[in-house]
Amino acid sequence: MSKIDNIMKDLVIANRILANEDVVDAYGHVSIRHPDKPNHFFLSRSLAPELVEFEDIVEFGMDGEPVRDEKRPLYLERFIHAGILEARPDVMAVVHAHAEDILPFGIATDTPLRPVIHSGSFIGANVPVWDISENFGDTNVLVSNMAQARDLAKKLGGNNVALMSAHGFASAAKSLIEVVRMSVYLPRNARILQNAKTLGGEIRYLSQGEIDARNRGYSPYSTETWRTWEFWANKCGCGKLLNRPDGGPIYVHEHKHK
Amino acid sequence: MSKIDNIMKDLVIANRILANEDVVDAYGHVSIRHPDKPNHFFLSRSLAPELVEFEDIVEFGMDGEPVRDEKRPLYLERFIHAGILEARPDVMAVVHAHAEDILPFGIATDTPLRPVIHSGSFIGANVPVWDISENFGDTNVLVSNMAQARDLAKKLGGNNVALMSAHGFASAAKSLIEVVRMSVYLPRNARILQNAKTLGGEIRYLSQGEIDARNRGYSPYSTETWRTWEFWANKCGCGKLLNRPDGGPIYVHEHKHK
Amino acid sequence: MSKIDNIMKDLVIANRILANEDVVDAYGHVSIRHPDKPNHFFLSRSLAPELVEFEDIVEFGMDGEPVRDEKRPLYLERFIHAGILEARPDVMAVVHAHAEDILPFGIATDTPLRPVIHSGSFIGANVPVWDISENFGDTNVLVSNMAQARDLAKKLGGNNVALMSAHGFASAAKSLIEVVRMSVYLPRNARILQNAKTLGGEIRYLSQGEIDARNRGYSPYSTETWRTWEFWANKCGCGKLLNRPDGGPIYVHEHKHK
Amino acid sequence: MSKIDNIMKDLVIANRILANEDVVDAYGHVSIRHPDKPNHFFLSRSLAPELVEFEDIVEFGMDGEPVRDEKRPLYLERFIHAGILEARPDVMAVVHAHAEDILPFGIATDTPLRPVIHSGSFIGANVPVWDISENFGDTNVLVSNMAQARDLAKKLGGNNVALMSAHGFASAAKSLIEVVRMSVYLPRNARILQNAKTLGGEIRYLSQGEIDARNRGYSPYSTETWRTWEFWANKCGCGKLLNRPDGGPIYVHEHKHK
Repeated sequence: MSKIDNIMKDLVIANRILANEDVVDAYGHVSIRHPDKPNHFFLSRSLAPELVEFEDIVEFGMDGEPVRDEKRPLYLERFIHAGILEARPDVMAVVHAHAEDILPFGIATDTPLRPVIHSGSFIGANVPVWDISENFGDTNVLVSNMAQARDLAKKLGGNNVALMSAHGFASAAKSLIEVVRMSVYLPRNARILQNAKTLGGEIRYLSQGEIDARNRGYSPYSTETWRTWEFWANKCGCGKLLNRPDGGPIYVHEHKHK
Repeated sequence: MSKIDNIMKDLVIANRILANEDVVDAYGHVSIRHPDKPNHFFLSRSLAPELVEFEDIVEFGMDGEPVRDEKRPLYLERFIHAGILEARPDVMAVVHAHAEDILPFGIATDTPLRPVIHSGSFIGANVPVWDISENFGDTNVLVSNMAQARDLAKKLGGNNVALMSAHGFASAAKSLIEVVRMSVYLPRNARILQNAKTLGGEIRYLSQGEIDARNRGYSPYSTETWRTWEFWANKCGCGKLLNRPDGGPIYVHEHKHK
Repeated sequence: MSKIDNIMKDLVIANRILANEDVVDAYGHVSIRHPDKPNHFFLSRSLAPELVEFEDIVEFGMDGEPVRDEKRPLYLERFIHAGILEARPDVMAVVHAHAEDILPFGIATDTPLRPVIHSGSFIGANVPVWDISENFGDTNVLVSNMAQARDLAKKLGGNNVALMSAHGFASAAKSLIEVVRMSVYLPRNARILQNAKTLGGEIRYLSQGEIDARNRGYSPYSTETWRTWEFWANKCGCGKLLNRPDGGPIYVHEHKHK
Repeated sequence: MSKIDNIMKDLVIANRILANEDVVDAYGHVSIRHPDKPNHFFLSRSLAPELVEFEDIVEFGMDGEPVRDEKRPLYLERFIHAGILEARPDVMAVVHAHAEDILPFGIATDTPLRPVIHSGSFIGANVPVWDISENFGDTNVLVSNMAQARDLAKKLGGNNVALMSAHGFASAAKSLIEVVRMSVYLPRNARILQNAKTLGGEIRYLSQGEIDARNRGYSPYSTETWRTWEFWANKCGCGKLLNRPDGGPIYVHEHKHK
């Protein structure tokens, strides 16, 4: 029970961080797989992430439908989460968002989005671009059923991020903290690559060896990763929801010298 | 009476959202047609939209003049609203604003502004550019009479948005919620197209089929559209003014876990 | 006495608006000529504009020195104000600032800064670029004496704005409200021209006829100009300092529907 | 004792300013050399700079390790500070950060970062770019031991700033106030150079003579430098921690006219 409680707290924090760090607005959402029932996942009902509270979280099955009777409106694109969690047993958490600064790379597809800063390494060397029109023709560009979600998951393959042309991105990771962190640094990496391209000349991308070295040291409760999660949670007013299963220190900050 | 009350509430919300989402500053305004008197419309007196309250709203006729005695200063450019509402019986609400990021497209007119993201689809495939100097020569660039307003409305034609060269834009829709949503995503679409152009190579625009598919699913109280309106209204402190004629759920949010 | 009181209030408002609208940071300042003693002007002691209060304002002579004994540190560049007010009897108020987005135009001088949006018209068709090194060689780039200030004023000539290469700008107008408004829209005009240039193709500049037409209708207490001043003053917490000599309406806003 | 107290206060202010001015986020840190023990320096434990309080500050030796028993997690990259302070006896304070707008210049290395605005002069005419992969191959791109830190310090040489490719920058100065000021204006200088390059044509860089002239007049408690420090400290809620050894005036501001 307490384990689920902590997951709920983390999911509220994740929603609020993604809103506060400008990754989502009224649109975009974040899910986490049920720790004991791998075919279930948690996701908010239809609501802007900044407003999400515990009672807004709904439990879904791998068909993208709620496992219990639910009268409240749901995210149309909840299938994205089902599709990726179904295809990728290694993935525990998924973000879908429309962060503005990645969108040019889904539209001007001659320029691949690749990691150029250390904090962007987790997006991986290959960020595929999925275009819904390839297999589904003229749609409303939204992922509104499992067939579309599975097509997206297929394009994502074993990668961590897929751009969705004219729409946004989907990111996947082995923990909630990792997928949030990656989703915050993804648009930053995009902005920096955009500006470096504007300066011109040769671009210094991260090498595969550097990406691998960073992956080896990455875990949700490492000193470096926790520092960001702790900071972002405090920044968006969620310091009191912070919790960590590894028993490490937690700081809820109130500035004393003010 | 209650119907008019709700329209007033919505118009205050619309003013505040447009200010909070950076579409208007001290300049720019939003109008709504009178639901029972199609030749009348509501618009604030001369005031920065962020400051508009119920008592600031004035009822106008299709000549762009107040229908009752009014001593307070009025927007010089109120004629824009009259001109478009007169020419377009299908339009219920109009925005005029100077949102910064659309302005380059009204100046560097070799690059047409076209939808490249799904949330920008509602601007339509064709965004005409109106240049006041074409028919009126050297003016102060403002639309200050009905002749100019009708010329703008003629350039707008059956489209949803017209850029106004060296000045701003006018947008029109069949509901207030739709025109506000479109006006917020218009500059975002412009920024993304600007950045995609900078990256270079071929640009993936929305197809006419995609634009049509999105239009078919668009209505002010759909789950997706309401989510934004509800979020933006809460964000700018207007949650308590929210109302919906379709009887759907309304959430006024106060974060509980703080 | 009351006339001076109102000028002090306006000068505090001007300082706070320029800070709040991101025209100045810790650096940059705004002055107003003494209404009864044309060889005197008012300017804050050395202090970030956002922090300026009544008691910080100092009265200066045309040599750029305080007319009364003054122990507090002063702006090193106060001479800019003396130099321009001395050379231009038509000017009542001066701003000097380093607003970031005008700086590229003082450095990449092949691209002249010209008005491209109606709200930028007041900068005038010609914005000269002054480079201190032309007549003074290697300096600390600051205007720190009357000789340098007079050289700047000479380059400004009869124009409204001069860019200062590698440094900032100086702007001058016949009223405080006008110089503040122009200084806020100057960087916006610069950003839009920068982005239009990036889009490429032919640029639509304001014509001289349009600039003239706009100048004819411009006065500090017109409906349109007052709306911005009133809005900006309320936004930065100075609504209660608002005053107008023409007896027009003043609104100090507190949102009632919250 | 009081001297150390004031250094602690200044270090808290520095952390908060760097966060508030967007130079650091959860990552990045600032150190100051011990005034009496030149082989010691002060730096926070692992914590986002915005959250740093007195009790978070730890005393380190030149091996980058705490001089007293310390159980709390530490910054992985604390070695950067040790390496630079060891190599440069003239340096009293060091900043390491990932400020976004300098990153393109560490990636598109054909364009050197050079000062183009007077407030950017202190970065010096030469800003070397250090690439960890040159001598250490495929790493996680972080400076995690003294060998890497010494290599960085060697590339920095006698300069004030080194860019760290795909990572960030390190800056060094003879006082804490100077290194903070330089670190805030460094990304601004980068943005302006980026935009000037986009405008195209010849760029007007600061000359060596201008850089020298500015250096001659630069000291932490000069009127101009103090104005920024005082302003930034007040802005981030640290006005009450302000102190100055030269006995000059200190203003803690609360707006009175609100």
